[in-house]
Amino acid sequence: MPVDSNASVRISAFNWVPPFAQGHVRDLRPRWAFEEAGISYAVRKLDATTGRPAEYYEEQPFGQVPSYHDEAVSLFESGAIVLHIGRDCDTLLPRDAAARARATAWLIAALNSIEPYVMQLATIDIFAAGEEWTKQRRPQVVELIGQRLSRLADALGDKTYLDGDAFTAGDLMMTSVLRSLESKDLLERHPNLMAYKMRCEARPAFRAALAAQIADFEKREGLSG
Amino acid sequence: MPVDSNASVRISAFNWVPPFAQGHVRDLRPRWAFEEAGISYAVRKLDATTGRPAEYYEEQPFGQVPSYHDEAVSLFESGAIVLHIGRDCDTLLPRDAAARARATAWLIAALNSIEPYVMQLATIDIFAAGEEWTKQRRPQVVELIGQRLSRLADALGDKTYLDGDAFTAGDLMMTSVLRSLESKDLLERHPNLMAYKMRCEARPAFRAALAAQIADFEKREGLSG
Repeated sequence: MPVDSNASVRISAFNWVPPFAQGHVRDLRPRWAFEEAGISYAVRKLDATTGRPAEYYEEQPFGQVPSYHDEAVSLFESGAIVLHIGRDCDTLLPRDAAARARATAWLIAALNSIEPYVMQLATIDIFAAGEEWTKQRRPQVVELIGQRLSRLADALGDKTYLDGDAFTAGDLMMTSVLRSLESKDLLERHPNLMAYKMRCEARPAFRAALAAQIADFEKREGLSG
Repeated sequence: MPVDSNASVRISAFNWVPPFAQGHVRDLRPRWAFEEAGISYAVRKLDATTGRPAEYYEEQPFGQVPSYHDEAVSLFESGAIVLHIGRDCDTLLPRDAAARARATAWLIAALNSIEPYVMQLATIDIFAAGEEWTKQRRPQVVELIGQRLSRLADALGDKTYLDGDAFTAGDLMMTSVLRSLESKDLLERHPNLMAYKMRCEARPAFRAALAAQIADFEKREGLSG
C-alpha cells in the first residue's frame, strides 16, 4: 500500500467516522486513484466530531474531506483531485485526447448527474431520518434515482466499463458514487450495473484503498469498527 | 458571435423553454466557453416539451442539454464540455499545471459542492412548489446554501476571481451556478460574491453567450420571451 508518512503528496482524512460511513468517506476516491497510479501518499487526519482547525479552510474552503497537497499545488474536490492524480496515469486518463475527454465526462456525470440525487437519499435515510417531510419526498427521490440508473444501465449495456474495455477515472468515480446505493433495492434492478460495480470494486487498487481508509480509523471503545 | 451553422463543433440546446428558464439552460456554459476561446459552434435544437429522439441518448445518456460533438469526440456534462473547450485556451485553463488544477477544482466545486443544493431549492420553489414537504424542507436547504455561500465568500475574500487576478473556467462555472440564486436573498448577504458574479457576467463573452441562447428560442404565441 502506498501510504507513506514521508510522501511529498498528502491528503486529508478523518481519524474516525460512525460505522455506517466507514469505507464511504470521500478520501477513498484519491486513495483509489493513488493505488491505480502507483503514487505514495501521506495522510493528515482530522477529527470529524469537532470543528475543523481554522487554517484547514485555507486548503478546503468548505471544510470537507479530502483536501490534497503536493509540492506544487493545494487542491480540493475529490473529482479535481482524482483528475490531477490521473494526469500522468494512462489507466485513469488515457493518452488519447478523445478517450481522456470521455473519461472526464463520466467522472463529472457521477458527480453532477448521479451523486446529487444519491446524497438527497442519504439525507432522507440518515441525517433527516424521521422528519415528517421525508415521508412525502422519499418516493420522489427514489423515482429520480431510478430514472437516472435506467439511463446509466442503458449507456453501459454489455460493455465492461462505461467507455468500453478499459477502466478509467470515470469508472472510479461512478463506482464510488454507486456504492452509496448499496441495499436500497435500486442498483439491484439492473444486473449489468451491479456486475459493473462489483467488477470495479474487485480491482486490487480499490481493495487496497478501502483497506487503507479503514486502517486509518482509530478504535473507539464500545463502538464497532 | 461564433454561432455558425457550418461549424464542425456542435452543441445541443432547446428551441424554447418557459420564460423563467430562459438564460439559464445549461448550454449557456459551453456557449460562454466558446466565446472566451473564440471557437465557432453550431447548434442542434431540441424540443424541450416533447421526449428526446431515441438516438439522442447515444450522445447524452440522460437526455439532457447540452451535448457536444466535434470531429474527434462526442461528449456530455457541461463541466466536461467546458474543460474540453478550454484545453487550448489559456484564459479558461491556464498553461501552468498548478493554476490549471485549481481552475478545475473550482469548476468541480461549483458542480458538486454548490449546485446540488441550488438545484434542491429550484425543485422546492419551482418544480414541487406547493407540495407539503417543501414547507418543512425549504428552511433547511436555505440554511445549507447559506453555509456554503459563507465559505465561498470567505474563500473569495477581496480577490477579483476565485484563484486571484485571472478569470478561469472555474469562475465561468461558479457564476453559472450562482445565477440560479438570483432574488433568493442569499447571494445578497455577501457583497463580495454579488460583485464577483456581476464582474463575471459583465465579460463580453458572457453577454454574447447569453444573447445567443436567447436568440435561439422561438417565439411562442401568447407567451412572453
